[in-house]
Amino acid sequence: MPQQIISVSTRGAGLYEFTEEAAAFVEKAGRGEGLLTLFVRHTSCSLTIQENADPDVQRDLQLFFHRLVPPADDPSMGWLHHTMEGPDDMPAHIKAALTQVSICVPVFAGRLMLGTWQGIYLFEHRSRPHRRDIVLHLGP
Amino acid sequence: MPQQIISVSTRGAGLYEFTEEAAAFVEKAGRGEGLLTLFVRHTSCSLTIQENADPDVQRDLQLFFHRLVPPADDPSMGWLHHTMEGPDDMPAHIKAALTQVSICVPVFAGRLMLGTWQGIYLFEHRSRPHRRDIVLHLGP
Amino acid sequence: MPQQIISVSTRGAGLYEFTEEAAAFVEKAGRGEGLLTLFVRHTSCSLTIQENADPDVQRDLQLFFHRLVPPADDPSMGWLHHTMEGPDDMPAHIKAALTQVSICVPVFAGRLMLGTWQGIYLFEHRSRPHRRDIVLHLGP
Repeated sequence: MPQQIISVSTRGAGLYEFTEEAAAFVEKAGRGEGLLTLFVRHTSCSLTIQENADPDVQRDLQLFFHRLVPPADDPSMGWLHHTMEGPDDMPAHIKAALTQVSICVPVFAGRLMLGTWQGIYLFEHRSRPHRRDIVLHLGP
Repeated sequence: MPQQIISVSTRGAGLYEFTEEAAAFVEKAGRGEGLLTLFVRHTSCSLTIQENADPDVQRDLQLFFHRLVPPADDPSMGWLHHTMEGPDDMPAHIKAALTQVSICVPVFAGRLMLGTWQGIYLFEHRSRPHRRDIVLHLGP
Repeated sequence: MPQQIISVSTRGAGLYEFTEEAAAFVEKAGRGEGLLTLFVRHTSCSLTIQENADPDVQRDLQLFFHRLVPPADDPSMGWLHHTMEGPDDMPAHIKAALTQVSICVPVFAGRLMLGTWQGIYLFEHRSRPHRRDIVLHLGP
């Protein structure tokens, strides 16, 4: 089955769209029907499919998760134990657990069956720049 | 591979079960073993597998998410930016990010391998009636 | 397609790793490339892929979910309706909805394409010991 690893470079917490790369992978495979699986090989970022029209949606999503799981140096987070890798590390693991490590998108007529407003995003939860690997797998 | 799009009509926020439609699709395909993938083509509703015995479980689930992510006109949500599509829109996107856009259920002997109490639900997060499209994909 | 049901015995809320069992299943199948799907047949526990280096990560994850969704006898949870099966039951359903019922991991050269620090876990949300069934399905 066709497989590919793509990398997304991140510059802080937020959503990074890679719908085009995923669509290009599927198109290149030249199959009619199938199932695209996306899998991210990290535990401090994750995957989400969200509205790709208004960038404020992505901004609000990140803000919500930041408010729900503040950095470890926030007074409300004094109960955390895993703090050695920086104040944004354990909150990043929690945000990853609250979202997706893998997503499957059916393919029809060689195209992803996404809805009109759906975009595929890497959801970065860490502050510093990272290079994130995502596996694309096209099965029948 | 067999594919089908089914529509679920919603009348406000809550869980709408479609286990029977999914089971009928799998049965009609007449395969022994396989993998059913469910994918919802929207970003303001989502998918979940939950207990289908006591309706209070579904009610409490919806209440929890309503309390965790109140409507935009709630005083606690003044930090939201994306509010043009109504007070329930951005919270719906957030609730969708917290749940699933796709779910995979293995099939054995032509039947979904669900546990005794598991039902498959569309989780509607918007207030007004909607017609929601879900892709069913049966792979090997 | 190769399928197997494995059982994980739990002794209270927390994360229980079963990466080795999943890897052994894939290895035994002897395929080069493919897609492993994990599916848990319950609604009061769930699946997650998380860091498997520092056990404090798993401890903090469980603590976060416990704080986000306290037991039904906590004063803040008086709005719950489904309380007949014990104070930890409805919170367990909510925690399951916030995490995953199914996860897909691509396979290459007969091995799971997990990142360096990724481990596969059953996330138990109930207090008493349980035996939890997880379906492993290896597709192309």
